[in-house]
Amino acid sequence: MEPLHRRTYNPFVRLGIVQTNPLVGAVEQNLKTILQRLEEARERGCHLVVFPELALCGYFPFDLLWRPGFVRRMEEALQEIARASGGIGVIVGGVSVRKRKDAANLADPSSVADGAGQELWNSAFFIANGRVLEEQPKLRLPSFDVYGEERYFTPAAGSRVFKFAGRRLGISLCEDLWVDDGPTETQASLGADLVVNISASPFFAGKGAIRRELVARRARENGVSVLYVNLVGGQDELVFDGGSLLAGPEGELLFQAPYFAEALFVLDLERLRPIPHPTDDPLRLVREAIVLGIRDYVRKNGFSHVFLGLSGGIDSALVACLAVEALGPERVTGVSLPSSITAAENREDAREVGRRLGIDVREIPIASIVAAYKEAIPSLSGVPVENVQARVRATLLMALANEGDALVLVTGNKSEIAVGYNTLYGDTAGALAPIADLYKTEVYALARSLGGRIPERVLKKAPTAELRPGQRDEDDLPPYSVLDPLLRELVETNASREELVAHGFSEAVVADVLSRYYRSEYKRRQFPPGIKVSPKAFGSGRRVPLTHGYRD
Amino acid sequence: MEPLHRRTYNPFVRLGIVQTNPLVGAVEQNLKTILQRLEEARERGCHLVVFPELALCGYFPFDLLWRPGFVRRMEEALQEIARASGGIGVIVGGVSVRKRKDAANLADPSSVADGAGQELWNSAFFIANGRVLEEQPKLRLPSFDVYGEERYFTPAAGSRVFKFAGRRLGISLCEDLWVDDGPTETQASLGADLVVNISASPFFAGKGAIRRELVARRARENGVSVLYVNLVGGQDELVFDGGSLLAGPEGELLFQAPYFAEALFVLDLERLRPIPHPTDDPLRLVREAIVLGIRDYVRKNGFSHVFLGLSGGIDSALVACLAVEALGPERVTGVSLPSSITAAENREDAREVGRRLGIDVREIPIASIVAAYKEAIPSLSGVPVENVQARVRATLLMALANEGDALVLVTGNKSEIAVGYNTLYGDTAGALAPIADLYKTEVYALARSLGGRIPERVLKKAPTAELRPGQRDEDDLPPYSVLDPLLRELVETNASREELVAHGFSEAVVADVLSRYYRSEYKRRQFPPGIKVSPKAFGSGRRVPLTHGYRD
Repeated sequence: MEPLHRRTYNPFVRLGIVQTNPLVGAVEQNLKTILQRLEEARERGCHLVVFPELALCGYFPFDLLWRPGFVRRMEEALQEIARASGGIGVIVGGVSVRKRKDAANLADPSSVADGAGQELWNSAFFIANGRVLEEQPKLRLPSFDVYGEERYFTPAAGSRVFKFAGRRLGISLCEDLWVDDGPTETQASLGADLVVNISASPFFAGKGAIRRELVARRARENGVSVLYVNLVGGQDELVFDGGSLLAGPEGELLFQAPYFAEALFVLDLERLRPIPHPTDDPLRLVREAIVLGIRDYVRKNGFSHVFLGLSGGIDSALVACLAVEALGPERVTGVSLPSSITAAENREDAREVGRRLGIDVREIPIASIVAAYKEAIPSLSGVPVENVQARVRATLLMALANEGDALVLVTGNKSEIAVGYNTLYGDTAGALAPIADLYKTEVYALARSLGGRIPERVLKKAPTAELRPGQRDEDDLPPYSVLDPLLRELVETNASREELVAHGFSEAVVADVLSRYYRSEYKRRQFPPGIKVSPKAFGSGRRVPLTHGYRD
Repeated sequence: MEPLHRRTYNPFVRLGIVQTNPLVGAVEQNLKTILQRLEEARERGCHLVVFPELALCGYFPFDLLWRPGFVRRMEEALQEIARASGGIGVIVGGVSVRKRKDAANLADPSSVADGAGQELWNSAFFIANGRVLEEQPKLRLPSFDVYGEERYFTPAAGSRVFKFAGRRLGISLCEDLWVDDGPTETQASLGADLVVNISASPFFAGKGAIRRELVARRARENGVSVLYVNLVGGQDELVFDGGSLLAGPEGELLFQAPYFAEALFVLDLERLRPIPHPTDDPLRLVREAIVLGIRDYVRKNGFSHVFLGLSGGIDSALVACLAVEALGPERVTGVSLPSSITAAENREDAREVGRRLGIDVREIPIASIVAAYKEAIPSLSGVPVENVQARVRATLLMALANEGDALVLVTGNKSEIAVGYNTLYGDTAGALAPIADLYKTEVYALARSLGGRIPERVLKKAPTAELRPGQRDEDDLPPYSVLDPLLRELVETNASREELVAHGFSEAVVADVLSRYYRSEYKRRQFPPGIKVSPKAFGSGRRVPLTHGYRD
């Protein structure tokens, strides 16, 4: 990078923050958005405009980073941004590449497709006056939960501070702020008066407050203003929720951007005054996250319509509501798939859910199809028949979706996924599972918060898979009021058998739940992406072998 | 660790190498095997016995490493090995743990379940005279392809050399040997006369020769003997193939253990003479890998029987052969699932395959079930009906397996998986996909190598999914003689669109294949584990977003 050619700006006072919603891998399209927002920021008199981490390629491209030419497009895009940077400074996230001197790993052919022979950096680029003037790679590469950056990136050798328009700026990336040994202290000691952290930080309930505390703490610890700029948008399991913010050098909150909004925010630094920390409504944010997650999954994958099974139960009613909020009623079709044992009440409730939401509801009875299977395998009875019912429903839903070039939404919740209370290729079949990260008790809470959109009877009936006469979830499983707190300890804090018992759950219940949990891993492996709204969701943030002998 | 208390041994001359087949996470069970082999080695007069990487917990436990108590069991196991180490030195792989001083990452609740607050090391332990005397952690943690060790482990600070029985030993772990900047040079310069590399190195075709070259090169470069000790056994997608070996200080091969054999090998060092590099038969090894992969998946997961659909085609015939080789004919049931368009020849061939293998073959026609679906959705036609047929077959196979507490084997090959020439929840449904990493042309080669076990007519007929009358794969796809070499460039070397065209594939074919490849990612995401036999298989060694806009 060339040294910064200082101009005679006054200290910049007008700052632009852009929460972009990139499409992973679509560098040209993302560049176009960035250039539009850059132009908008210039027109509104911003001296500096900041885009999030990996705004050029989206978060996270995974092995696409190793496709030849993938990173080169970002280098070209940076030059285009440079050409558009007259009169305004830009900070934007992207990737840089360098050939390895040692070409390490090339002994192993398994590394040939995996970027052996090159090094990549997850970097923030500072651009002004027609040039890329600074590159700050990320120092701390996260590899826990859904993150796997060490697979791809080399960590920065260090961090620095540079001058722009009368200020001394330090830049860091996401995780650099979260760990105690990140670069903020170094940058403050080098005289930074503003540390800009560009992030790609996915939502979970309660994260906004944690971020505000974190940014305030780093600011206060180091006596430096900290600007936090986050992505928005759904990307497979993740929903980036924006909520960018600025804390002053005493940790005071000076600005808080709204969640989930794709927008430019303009801040006049000299006019900012401390504001109180807002109180987030977790249920409202979970709902908005799921809605954006559905909308972006459908839109970014080039679909416009979804189908889902409506059983008359709470899970499918809730998913239908959220899908309608995401896509509009004309893009959602509910399908009622009654069997010979489906209660009339449940058929009615499925229709009533559809009526209240203004969506089409088709009813396709499955009894004759199930009978055809029984005729083909006369010995079938018990659980295998229950599974056949669930798979017949999946086959019908997939057929309708295939016909209409649409997607199927899976209506399973986190409690049933955790204990495998579902049928693989049956109710697990579909493209996206919107409420897969909500425990059953959270499903009720969110459904109740939606006002009258879900019929009272649906809210009140006992949960049932309705695969055999008189079946109720709580005859098979511990009551959800016990199961859900236990699962939360098990999944979110990784509590062991011993710890669960110490927390007051009975040994018998712990043994039953752990047994179900371990033996249903194969179902989770083939489960579609679920939208993450908790600190620890099933899916890519959790890697467990299928074959193993650990049972505690 | 305590310093080594030297005894007055002569330089040890008898070395035991144990290729163990652990069950991931079953530390007590793996310990039992280790203690038996240790006793056997002592009885046979070994001075030192070496077990592979992570022999105590199996490779790879993934997030089980973060279950509270998981690592503690290994610490207890090490003490048991120490108590059994009278008169013999032991090198064994396991994990050690230390609380973090800084408790980094604890700001992020997503890290709570993920071992934040502790550091783990992937270590080799040297045990003798009743004590754990040395711990050598791995220096180079792989995170490419199927490996993700940086998620879990801290790299070693350095490597050292210690004396045992008149020799100077250095220990390294797997990847430490593969990279050019690994510890072998350091250990040789510290006077090591034997470097022991304990590995967990999964099979792919041709890897044995690469390993021999690698070990010989490290030995020769550094003038030191190098012992390479590898695991055996199937673990989900991976098959560890053993093939342990010893190279002398001029790179000469002194010992080569057989592949796939779970055994103790005893070497009298002073009697070893250089042997020629063996010539591996890649088809035979691929077959053995798949057979062991099937056997261990079924056995280690507590099953004993498998079902598979027999179409009369080559893929299912090959999988049936391999399953019979793995489990015996009485544990394999073939199911012929003819539709109204299935050719009589294919029904006969399905029966003939079963007859030659001595397995039960059930025939269940699907026409009446498919008709029931068409009655339920009268508009159904075209591809959606083809998909229904495939899903009816899956539902029947799963019902039979559910009835018999058995698993379903998926018969899909790598060519069709690459281009999505399959039906999600149809022919992709099952627990394990034995030939998922064989291109169609490799399926033929392996099938032909099996002698008369597969009928000649099955080997010669044109491949067809037989989902519509007269359908042939090569009417829908490029001929396999073009498709497979193209796919190999795309998958194994990650060739771009531009590079594929430069390699001589027509632009139209490249465009068609890339389009199919990118748009079928969602099918691969929900695919069961396939047995890896190439440097780059679909599955956990390949991470690609579902939602993305990259098309080159």
